[in-house]
Amino acid sequence: MSFSPLIRQLIDALRILPGVGQKTAQRMALQLLERDRSGGLRLAQALTAAMEGVGHCQRCRTLSEEALCPQCADPRRDDSLLCVVEGPLDVFAVEQTGYRGRFFVLKGHLSPLDGLGPEAIGIPELMERIEAGSFSEVILATNPTVEGEATAHYIAQLLAPRSIAVTRIAHGVPLGGELELVDGGTLAHALAGRRPIGL
Amino acid sequence: MSFSPLIRQLIDALRILPGVGQKTAQRMALQLLERDRSGGLRLAQALTAAMEGVGHCQRCRTLSEEALCPQCADPRRDDSLLCVVEGPLDVFAVEQTGYRGRFFVLKGHLSPLDGLGPEAIGIPELMERIEAGSFSEVILATNPTVEGEATAHYIAQLLAPRSIAVTRIAHGVPLGGELELVDGGTLAHALAGRRPIGL
Repeated sequence: MSFSPLIRQLIDALRILPGVGQKTAQRMALQLLERDRSGGLRLAQALTAAMEGVGHCQRCRTLSEEALCPQCADPRRDDSLLCVVEGPLDVFAVEQTGYRGRFFVLKGHLSPLDGLGPEAIGIPELMERIEAGSFSEVILATNPTVEGEATAHYIAQLLAPRSIAVTRIAHGVPLGGELELVDGGTLAHALAGRRPIGL
Repeated sequence: MSFSPLIRQLIDALRILPGVGQKTAQRMALQLLERDRSGGLRLAQALTAAMEGVGHCQRCRTLSEEALCPQCADPRRDDSLLCVVEGPLDVFAVEQTGYRGRFFVLKGHLSPLDGLGPEAIGIPELMERIEAGSFSEVILATNPTVEGEATAHYIAQLLAPRSIAVTRIAHGVPLGGELELVDGGTLAHALAGRRPIGL
């Protein structure tokens, strides 16, 4: 019994943040209290505003406080490309590459053992979106995990009867690594997916 | 440009937490928005309550929302022992050892280069506290760093004219480590501070 109740409550509340345990929460709470109370109040306001104000984009299902997220509202984007990802952070990651087509954000991946079927992750909405749009290519950018691959294959099968190109992001060796550190599965994909060097 | 304004503001606000960079803040914000909005609101309330409600204990200067912190308000503690530490987290650490005397919390350590002299870290208040109390021993438990040692020495010199025992926590090898990994300075302290084995 050492901290007073308000500090204890703050430490407990901070522990809901991912990757924050007891010691880190203590350090965070005391740092805010001793050094940056106005920052702490700003954080409280930003949390309240975001938790109460942020919903989902009507079109791509990413997190957004507007009916349409910035990507969907932008009229200069390529309406023939649709990139399907597992979550809002993936939108950010794909944006960084310079991709300027449209997005659709699933709620994670298929996971039958956890009871997450196509309806739970929003695949019916994805089909509606494709129906309503005029896409010539759907890029499946789910994670390169067993579940992400299964989700991509499931969507590819659903889309097979339509005249839309369905692609999957390439698997291979990541840039900047060393070949001896790459796992066998990745290297096998990298070999199978080899391409002529354009000179 | 990828996240909507409320989410961007939340990510920026989360970055004031110690050890939280851009990527971690993104993960925290999206985790709260997607999985635990009520937890996010609870965190906002706990932050506001703590930032506005927590002050300093009148007696030991630790963080507390009451005029007296739990340690100072407890009448069963040993009034002859005073432990001087650098911050509120150190109170918690010393408490864990089973220590049940009184505390005094400095605002960090002496650091002349940063303009932190005795007044800035609360040494006059410490002297008043010792004057007002009936301590037979003052334990200097500042950190085992250059600044912490200097602070301990400074306080020891101030207290030298009084008939109070002034002690410093022992330096030596930490439990559970390996001798070959201990630095030379620590090992020298451990040797110099050797004690007969009580059988």
